[in-house]
Amino acid sequence: KMLGRVLCTVLFMGALPSLAELAQGHISVVLLGATGDLAKKYLWQGLFQLYMDQVSSGHSFTFHGAALTAPERGQRLMFDVLKKLACPPDEPPNRCAVLKDQFLKLSQYHQLKTAENYTALNREIETLLRQEGLQEAGRIFYFSVPPFAYTEIARHINSSCRPPAGAWLRVVLEKPFGHDLRSAQQLAAELQSFFREEEMYRVDHYLGKQAVAHILPFRDQNRQFLDPIWNRHHVERVEIVLKETLDAKGRTSFYEQYGVIRDVLQNHLTEALMFLTMELPGNVSRAEEVLQNKLQAFQSLRRLEKGSAVLGQYQAYASQVQEELQKPQGYISTTPTFAGVLIHSDSPRWEGVPFLLASGKALDERVGYVRVLFKNRAYCVQSEALRDAGHSRCAAKQIIFHIGHGALHAPALLVSRNLFRPVMPKGSWREAETRSDLRLFGQALSDYYVYSPAKEREAYSLLISNIYHGRKDFFITTENLLASWAFWTPLLDSISHRPPRLYPGGVQNQHLLDFEMVGGEVAFAVAEPAALLDPSPQMPGDYKTIQSTFRQSPLVSAWADDLVAQLAADMEEAASRAVARRGQFHLALSGGSSPVVLFQRLARHHYAFPWQHTHVWLVDERCVPLTDAESNFFSLHKHLLQSVRVPYFNLHPMPVHLNRRLCVEEDRGAELYAQEIAALVANASFDLVLLGLGTDGHTASLFPHSEHGLEGARAVVLTESPVKPHQRMSFSLALINKARQVSVLVLGKGKHDITTLVSRVGRQPRKWPISGVSPSSGQLVWYVDYEALLG
Amino acid sequence: KMLGRVLCTVLFMGALPSLAELAQGHISVVLLGATGDLAKKYLWQGLFQLYMDQVSSGHSFTFHGAALTAPERGQRLMFDVLKKLACPPDEPPNRCAVLKDQFLKLSQYHQLKTAENYTALNREIETLLRQEGLQEAGRIFYFSVPPFAYTEIARHINSSCRPPAGAWLRVVLEKPFGHDLRSAQQLAAELQSFFREEEMYRVDHYLGKQAVAHILPFRDQNRQFLDPIWNRHHVERVEIVLKETLDAKGRTSFYEQYGVIRDVLQNHLTEALMFLTMELPGNVSRAEEVLQNKLQAFQSLRRLEKGSAVLGQYQAYASQVQEELQKPQGYISTTPTFAGVLIHSDSPRWEGVPFLLASGKALDERVGYVRVLFKNRAYCVQSEALRDAGHSRCAAKQIIFHIGHGALHAPALLVSRNLFRPVMPKGSWREAETRSDLRLFGQALSDYYVYSPAKEREAYSLLISNIYHGRKDFFITTENLLASWAFWTPLLDSISHRPPRLYPGGVQNQHLLDFEMVGGEVAFAVAEPAALLDPSPQMPGDYKTIQSTFRQSPLVSAWADDLVAQLAADMEEAASRAVARRGQFHLALSGGSSPVVLFQRLARHHYAFPWQHTHVWLVDERCVPLTDAESNFFSLHKHLLQSVRVPYFNLHPMPVHLNRRLCVEEDRGAELYAQEIAALVANASFDLVLLGLGTDGHTASLFPHSEHGLEGARAVVLTESPVKPHQRMSFSLALINKARQVSVLVLGKGKHDITTLVSRVGRQPRKWPISGVSPSSGQLVWYVDYEALLG
Repeated sequence: KMLGRVLCTVLFMGALPSLAELAQGHISVVLLGATGDLAKKYLWQGLFQLYMDQVSSGHSFTFHGAALTAPERGQRLMFDVLKKLACPPDEPPNRCAVLKDQFLKLSQYHQLKTAENYTALNREIETLLRQEGLQEAGRIFYFSVPPFAYTEIARHINSSCRPPAGAWLRVVLEKPFGHDLRSAQQLAAELQSFFREEEMYRVDHYLGKQAVAHILPFRDQNRQFLDPIWNRHHVERVEIVLKETLDAKGRTSFYEQYGVIRDVLQNHLTEALMFLTMELPGNVSRAEEVLQNKLQAFQSLRRLEKGSAVLGQYQAYASQVQEELQKPQGYISTTPTFAGVLIHSDSPRWEGVPFLLASGKALDERVGYVRVLFKNRAYCVQSEALRDAGHSRCAAKQIIFHIGHGALHAPALLVSRNLFRPVMPKGSWREAETRSDLRLFGQALSDYYVYSPAKEREAYSLLISNIYHGRKDFFITTENLLASWAFWTPLLDSISHRPPRLYPGGVQNQHLLDFEMVGGEVAFAVAEPAALLDPSPQMPGDYKTIQSTFRQSPLVSAWADDLVAQLAADMEEAASRAVARRGQFHLALSGGSSPVVLFQRLARHHYAFPWQHTHVWLVDERCVPLTDAESNFFSLHKHLLQSVRVPYFNLHPMPVHLNRRLCVEEDRGAELYAQEIAALVANASFDLVLLGLGTDGHTASLFPHSEHGLEGARAVVLTESPVKPHQRMSFSLALINKARQVSVLVLGKGKHDITTLVSRVGRQPRKWPISGVSPSSGQLVWYVDYEALLG
Repeated sequence: KMLGRVLCTVLFMGALPSLAELAQGHISVVLLGATGDLAKKYLWQGLFQLYMDQVSSGHSFTFHGAALTAPERGQRLMFDVLKKLACPPDEPPNRCAVLKDQFLKLSQYHQLKTAENYTALNREIETLLRQEGLQEAGRIFYFSVPPFAYTEIARHINSSCRPPAGAWLRVVLEKPFGHDLRSAQQLAAELQSFFREEEMYRVDHYLGKQAVAHILPFRDQNRQFLDPIWNRHHVERVEIVLKETLDAKGRTSFYEQYGVIRDVLQNHLTEALMFLTMELPGNVSRAEEVLQNKLQAFQSLRRLEKGSAVLGQYQAYASQVQEELQKPQGYISTTPTFAGVLIHSDSPRWEGVPFLLASGKALDERVGYVRVLFKNRAYCVQSEALRDAGHSRCAAKQIIFHIGHGALHAPALLVSRNLFRPVMPKGSWREAETRSDLRLFGQALSDYYVYSPAKEREAYSLLISNIYHGRKDFFITTENLLASWAFWTPLLDSISHRPPRLYPGGVQNQHLLDFEMVGGEVAFAVAEPAALLDPSPQMPGDYKTIQSTFRQSPLVSAWADDLVAQLAADMEEAASRAVARRGQFHLALSGGSSPVVLFQRLARHHYAFPWQHTHVWLVDERCVPLTDAESNFFSLHKHLLQSVRVPYFNLHPMPVHLNRRLCVEEDRGAELYAQEIAALVANASFDLVLLGLGTDGHTASLFPHSEHGLEGARAVVLTESPVKPHQRMSFSLALINKARQVSVLVLGKGKHDITTLVSRVGRQPRKWPISGVSPSSGQLVWYVDYEALLG
């Protein structure tokens, strides 16, 4: 009732819109968590800004603060906040004072605790609208509450507070949106049971930062300049960085659960990354097109591995955790407070360009930026001393989206003057006066075109405005969120027990956190000084590979990753040796899942492998077309061959598919393959044969009690597998044992039993085919990981 | 006689070696052109230095100056030079004075003009040795004469002046060694008819520059640091530069014939390039191993194209030429006095690394250097202001072989301190004191380890010493020379008529000569200011492609290079369009020689071509194994497929080789291919079919009066070619005409007659198969070069 009166008062004030102008209808904004920190700091101010901006838009508004607190106390707390709302400098003070007064009158506090509370809120909104004869345009529910409260609130809103047909509902959600892919999926599924996708506005407040929000418009408006250079041929590297000077003190109960990757990289920096790497849609303001292209960009990201990140933790963190979370004295946290991550996209546009994401607490400065550094493709003939540095083609070329703070103390957009003069939207960005004494990213500020926003706006104010305008492209859709978690979760899993490097904090960090890219991975650039070393126990990754023997042959053993790395390195060495001596390397590879990691390792870390001189053969094949996902060759192609340069003529898939049928005896595919081997491989003696081991003791596609291949001299045979697809083609033991080198790779706990068994049995190939592997003059080496070896 | 006495006098001087110590034998040095410029400036001083260094080595010496001048005048001229020989600062003045006196006594002038003169010289040497009872160790003949005199002198030496068996002959030759590959081969063949390879010492005085001579030893002594980084993964670019301030004034009669590429790049800079790129032999002082690896490095160089170079000419050059060579006023020279060249090596080590060679006259400074810039792979967390620049991982990492002059005014070797502290040979190189105010290559001199030679030596002094020591690795062998000319000649041919950009000279050049790498080529970075534009006629390359019609279909015509570039660009556009619309691009390519340039163009300039989604088919094939050099697929693989990433499954060679036999009707290869097309290409309608045109009017492998393929609906047919190999497999006209787009590429004068004929005839496929090409609903475009079109 009070509200009704207020609304009337407001409606009849001279400076304000007439009833006719309010034909757009009424919007009710409900801020849940109205007395919390975020609301105090940003949200109320953002709502007030919205009101100031939109009071003449044709919509009428009411603002409903809500919390668990009892009405009287809640109302007092809330109005203490509202009274302190600031007038922006560009607003005439008189108008602002009037509008603030109105805003306070249009605002009301509600206790929202029980189902009845929600019903009552709904009733009040309806009554008001009826009384005032207003059409309802929509309702905004802003969840500024902890994530555990989401489901409950969502249920109540869904069941009691939906607006009538014709009016929209928008619920605004604040992170965290889960902890990993699984929890994010779970949370998303719950929310989806209450709201439709288009009703949900997930906030990543970085998307409200003016410099971040301008990445796509910038790319769009400067297509003429960027089209030729926005690709791997011209971009040298991209850095996406958020550095903080503050530490996690006072927030460790949150931070200890999340860490820097979940807190900053998975959301803020990833979104910036997507704006940079996604293909530009025809219309950048169409949220669907943007989302589609963003999802595609996610698909192109190369899977993160444990070597993709360096992690740090400021030294005081452990004691802060101990104190704030009442942990015992010796408690060790592995939560990273600093991370540097190397990301690659395999899209044709970005293949090979390093994207470096870095963020940390307790660093030397507070700054956020996105920096695109272009390759220097020029040679400048004039000596340096005589060059005009600012316009020289040899000076660095870069585009920097300066998000905030740092030496500039403000959002800005910088483009090297030797690159191009950017097109910037008049009105919202203007050319800034540059202080020539300032240097930024290796260059004088005067070497850049520098633009700053005509009006600096808080991220939340921009976001609230975008909620009002239904600009969904400023928010994180469910698909987008899950794509991001799908990308980050494997890294998070793989580093969960890795002890981060300790750093003192602030300028004392010196070079301690600098990191370098090495073969697709990153590593700290300087060794850890002993004084800072944490006396934590050695982690698995630190163990060296162990050499010993297995079935009288050399055994290499280590944790799976290290073992695969060792085998890949040994293979490269064998290949280089063979090529140096005989001009070519004949490599026979097995199918199955274990070799996949090996293939990927070879593809990504062994650039010096002499692929041009390598012949690739298959040890065994399933009788399916080569383009079938089940085909060993298909898998080999996908994980290895398509990334390296083996000449077409050096690839030898097994001829399982002849005369449009699969492995028919009369088509003599096995003989054909044996003939090809005889024609190309001297003495049919392969330089290296890679084998696996099945839980039944099979190797290649030679299964226990197989009719063919275990005995006799035939080189290539058709066999039957106990599992589908049953028909196989395989090297025989006779052929395998002619090899110069046979390497058997065994990975995983699942292989422990058979490994133990095989370690004891004699030569009984009919029972355990693997036991028949015994090169007549070559060498056999076992690569067995700790899990298979030790269980 | 006089000489005999002198030798005796010398032998009995106290400070000098005893007879026993001279057991090594006698060496006669004959300097031809003893009174010329080079001899005056460097060679006599080098010989005197040799004498000072080796007087106690066990060899005795005599020095014979020779020229065409009559004896008395020649002797006077020569001794005027000898009297002015300088004592090096590190030599005790007394010893030097004594040795200079002896050197003069051991030196004698000879007129060498006629055959008799040579016989007489030989006789004198023999007599002297007999008289003194000396064993002959060897003879050095130094040719400091113009190249036209070489053959004559060589003939005389060979016939009259060879030392007796057991003693060696070394002839030293000065450049130019030819003008292009053919002339170099001719000169080499002539010389080889007189001298054995091991007798010839071709001088490239750059190999005597201390910084250049130390490249290989440096790589050798620093293997531990360089092994991991001396490759494409770590090297960003290499610059090999020789800048001069002088112009060609007074030397235009020589210069006008040669130009900067022949004068500097083909020899000096190329040799430095080889020292950098060659694989390091096990023993860097073994000349043969060095030579072998150098030749291999030459083989890996990618062929230079006209776009590999930018050329300039200082403005005053034309008038200097007019004046010095009495040319008419309007005479225009295209001789470049500046060149910037981009070189790529396709060796696994260097693939993709740009090697920039640049040299010019009338530039802003005199300097020579080799600069290896490493990639910055680091991210430095600390803000720039707080970093220790000199040791930061983010500062530039470079190794500079500073040949001479420039800001350092001396030879030097610089290694960035953040790279490694190099191993340098004690004694010959020492750490230099660095002036911290000096900046070099973007960094303070104090950011480098700087070494300078303990003793600065003239290049010629080092080279003469190496001739004496028989160090052939400091000289250019015939193979090396021809490899270099083979590399440079195609570029020289292709630019012979290109007008160079004019530049004012000195610091006025500003950015005018700066150049940039674009898609494997180089281009000047800034447009030519109109004021400097030369009013020379348009050159062929400047013509735009011309569009018109041919046989009622669109015709694109231009000079061959531009035409191929246009076709490649059109193909990329078609591919991108098809992939965007249908997800894949079905491309059918013809064999033959014309498409080779197209394939190379596609491989090297079209990085954005969607190969991952392209299917490659063959329009026709010769009935030979795929690995036969005659195979169309083999050629396609060599020139295109091995350089791009087409998935294995998307490559569709024609099945001409089935059941170990070629194109046998019963093997039904043609039907098999037709089935494959039917299975993968919607409606058997290719996105693009590329055809050629034979002089007999054939296209694909459809020859006039062919039984198959010209009529009827069969898609793929076996045909007979009038030329070997006779058997072919080919698309039929029916299949070709189903394509969405057919492009016919016709290149060269040889095609002019058939082109003219075909332009007039109607549809008569049995007579002229090409006239049957007429896509039913697709488009036909003719790409015919000016030579084929206009004759």
